[in-house]
Amino acid sequence: MSNFKKIPGGVCAPEGFAAGAVGAGIKTGKVLRDDLALVWSESPCASAATFTTNKVKAAPVLISAEHLKAGRNRAVVLNSGNANACTGPQGLKDARAMADAAAALLELNPKDVLVCSTGRIGVPMPIERILKGIADLRPSRSGSKATATAIMTSDTFAKQFAVEVKSKKGTFRIGGIAKGAGMIDPNMATMLSLVTTDAAVPQSVLRKELKRSVANSFNRITVDGDMSTNDTVILLANGLSGVAPDLGEFSEALDEVTRALAHMIVKDGEGVSRFVEVEVLGAASDKDARAAAEAIANSTLVKCAWAGGDPNWGRILDAVGYCGIRMTASKADIFYDKLIVVEGGMAAATPVAKLRAIAARKAFKVTVDLHLGKGAYHVWTTDLTEEYVRLNLGE
Amino acid sequence: MSNFKKIPGGVCAPEGFAAGAVGAGIKTGKVLRDDLALVWSESPCASAATFTTNKVKAAPVLISAEHLKAGRNRAVVLNSGNANACTGPQGLKDARAMADAAAALLELNPKDVLVCSTGRIGVPMPIERILKGIADLRPSRSGSKATATAIMTSDTFAKQFAVEVKSKKGTFRIGGIAKGAGMIDPNMATMLSLVTTDAAVPQSVLRKELKRSVANSFNRITVDGDMSTNDTVILLANGLSGVAPDLGEFSEALDEVTRALAHMIVKDGEGVSRFVEVEVLGAASDKDARAAAEAIANSTLVKCAWAGGDPNWGRILDAVGYCGIRMTASKADIFYDKLIVVEGGMAAATPVAKLRAIAARKAFKVTVDLHLGKGAYHVWTTDLTEEYVRLNLGE
Repeated sequence: MSNFKKIPGGVCAPEGFAAGAVGAGIKTGKVLRDDLALVWSESPCASAATFTTNKVKAAPVLISAEHLKAGRNRAVVLNSGNANACTGPQGLKDARAMADAAAALLELNPKDVLVCSTGRIGVPMPIERILKGIADLRPSRSGSKATATAIMTSDTFAKQFAVEVKSKKGTFRIGGIAKGAGMIDPNMATMLSLVTTDAAVPQSVLRKELKRSVANSFNRITVDGDMSTNDTVILLANGLSGVAPDLGEFSEALDEVTRALAHMIVKDGEGVSRFVEVEVLGAASDKDARAAAEAIANSTLVKCAWAGGDPNWGRILDAVGYCGIRMTASKADIFYDKLIVVEGGMAAATPVAKLRAIAARKAFKVTVDLHLGKGAYHVWTTDLTEEYVRLNLGE
Repeated sequence: MSNFKKIPGGVCAPEGFAAGAVGAGIKTGKVLRDDLALVWSESPCASAATFTTNKVKAAPVLISAEHLKAGRNRAVVLNSGNANACTGPQGLKDARAMADAAAALLELNPKDVLVCSTGRIGVPMPIERILKGIADLRPSRSGSKATATAIMTSDTFAKQFAVEVKSKKGTFRIGGIAKGAGMIDPNMATMLSLVTTDAAVPQSVLRKELKRSVANSFNRITVDGDMSTNDTVILLANGLSGVAPDLGEFSEALDEVTRALAHMIVKDGEGVSRFVEVEVLGAASDKDARAAAEAIANSTLVKCAWAGGDPNWGRILDAVGYCGIRMTASKADIFYDKLIVVEGGMAAATPVAKLRAIAARKAFKVTVDLHLGKGAYHVWTTDLTEEYVRLNLGE
C-alpha cells in the first residue's frame, strides 16, 4: 500500500493545472449561475477518456472522441444547462466552435481541447453566449471548486477529491471533479468526471489505467439504470511532479480518487436516502455475478423496499432468479451487512428487528452468496424514493 | 374475423365449469376474506400451462409442472395470502397436500389437479387451515367472480372476461380470471391467470395455442420489470360445446380473452395513472424491437415523466440508445399517438402543448420508428408514480 493522504484543490491539486468558471447564461433562471468552465494544463499532457456506450451520442462526445485520437490533449471546456445532444449537424458545429474558442484563448491547437456538455437534450446551444463566455474564462490554481460547481445540474453539492501520494519514486498528486447522473429537469442527463495528475505516465499506460479504474468505480454505480448520451470521464497527466510512479502505486491512487467521486455521485442521487453496496459472491462466473448485482440494484421493488427501511429478501432472491444466470435457489444465502437473512434459499432465523435496524441505516451492504463458483462482483446503488419520482415528473 | 361477443360468467361462462371460494384465514387481518378457491370441470379436459421462467420457482409451480406432464388436468386449487415460495421441502409437501385434498373433494386423481399460490414469500403455509378450507369448497356455475376476488392480493378489482364465439363450426365459449403483478406488501408477488373453454381442442394444439397467446398478451405487459416466482397461466378445454373450431377462429377468440385480462392487470398496477402502449417499428429484427420496447417501458425516468404528463422524448431516445440494439440516432422518429415529436433524431416542430395534451391522457401510445428494417414489437406498460413507491416501501 502506498502512503497517500487526502488534500484539497480538486483538479488543481496536481502541479500545473488551472481551472475557472463563468456564468454564460446557458442555464436559465433569474439568478445568473456559473455554467461554463475550463480546465487546462500549463504543459503538454498524456490524455485518456472513456465515453458513453449509448448509441445516441451527444455532439461533444463525438468531437472529443475525434480530438482524443490526436492525443496529448491538455484542456477541457465544459458546460452545464445544455447537453448539445440530438442537435444534428449544428450541434457538431457548436461543439467544434467551443474547442476552437478555448484553443484560441489558451493559444493551443483546437485538437488539444476536449469538450463536455450536460443539461437539456434536443435544445440548440446558445452558442453566441457560450463563445463570449469562453473568451471571459481566466483559469487559476484555485478554480477547481468553481468548476465543479459550474458543471452541476441536479447535483446538490460540488464533487471534488484529491490525494497526494508519497511513492517509492517521489511525491505526486491526483485530483478530480465530477457531476452526477441525476435527471431533475425533463431531458437532463449525464455523468461527467475530469481527473488530473502531475505523475509522469505514458499515454498508452494512462489509457489502459483509466479504462481499468472506470470499470472499478464509475461503471459500478447505478441510480436508475439509465445511461446518458453524454457520460464522459477524462484523465490528463502532465508529468510536472517529475515522478514516474510504479504502475501499482499509480493504480491504487487513481482508484482512490475515482471511487471517492463515484461514491459522491451515488450519495447525491435524486431523492436518495440510502447508499447500498450490493455484492454477489459464489456465482458461476464474474459475468453472472455482475448480472445478478445489477438486477438487484436496478429492481424498482428492491429499491422501494430499501426506501422503507425494509430488509426485504424475497425481492432480492426474485431478481437473482430472473436475471438469467445459473443459480440453485436452495443454495443461496443472503446477508444484510454481516447478518444472515436467507440460508439455503429459505428464511434464516435472524430476528427481524436486528435486520430492520440495518436496513434503516443511511448505508449498508447486501451480500448474496450463490455457492456455485468463484464469480464475484459488487455495485454501489441507492434506494428509490417518492422524492425521486417527484423530481422526475417533468415540467 | 369471427363473430364473437363479450358475455358474463368468467371461467364459468363455458359449459361444464364450476368455481367457488372460501375464507380459510390465510390472509391475515381483522375481517375474514375469501383467500382459497377451486375451479373444476365436470368432465375431462385437455390442459395447458405456462409457468414463470424465474430460477426461483415456488412449490405450487413445481408441483403443477409435474402434474401437467400427466395431462388432462381438470381442476385448479388457488390461494392468496401466501405464495408458498422459498419454503423448502415442507412447501412441496404442502402444495401436494392441497392437490390431494382438492382431488379427494372432487373424487379425482391428485394429478388431475393444478395448484396456484400467491402472496407472501418465505412464510410457511398455514396448511391445516388450508386443508380444512378445501374441504369446505362448493364450486358452482356462478362462482367465477368470487374466485377472481379470492385470488386478489394488491389488486383493486376482480379481473374476469369471457366471450361467446359463433364460429363456422358452431358456438363455443372462452372465459378467464386473472390477478395482477402488483406487490403491495413486502414479499408479495405473482401474476396468475386461469382460462377455460368448452371448445374441443386436442391437448397438443391447446399447448401450442396457449404458448402463442401468452406471448402476445401476458408476456407483453410490464409494470415494474420484475418477474415473480409464481407466475402461472393455465388453459383448460373440456369440449362440452361439442364444437371443434378452426384453429384461426379459436386463436382469435383466445387472444381476445388473454389480451383483455392482460390489459386489466396493467391498468390495475400499483399507483398507476397512465396505460401506455409502446410500439417499436423499423428495427433490424423483431428481437431488437422487443429489446427497445422493453427498455423504454422499464426505464424509471421515462415512467416518471409519464406520471407527470410530460411527453419527454430525450429519455425515450436515450433508452433505445443504451439497450444494445442496432440503431442510427439520426434516422429515429418518435410519435405520441399520431403526433411526431422526434424526426430524424431531432426535436420535431409539433407544438409542445399538443404533445402535452396527449401525455396528460389516461391512455396513449408511443411509437418509435428506427427506419432500419422490418422488426416490430409492442408492449403495454404504465407510468411510475409516487403512489407506487409508497405502496412498495415495505412494512
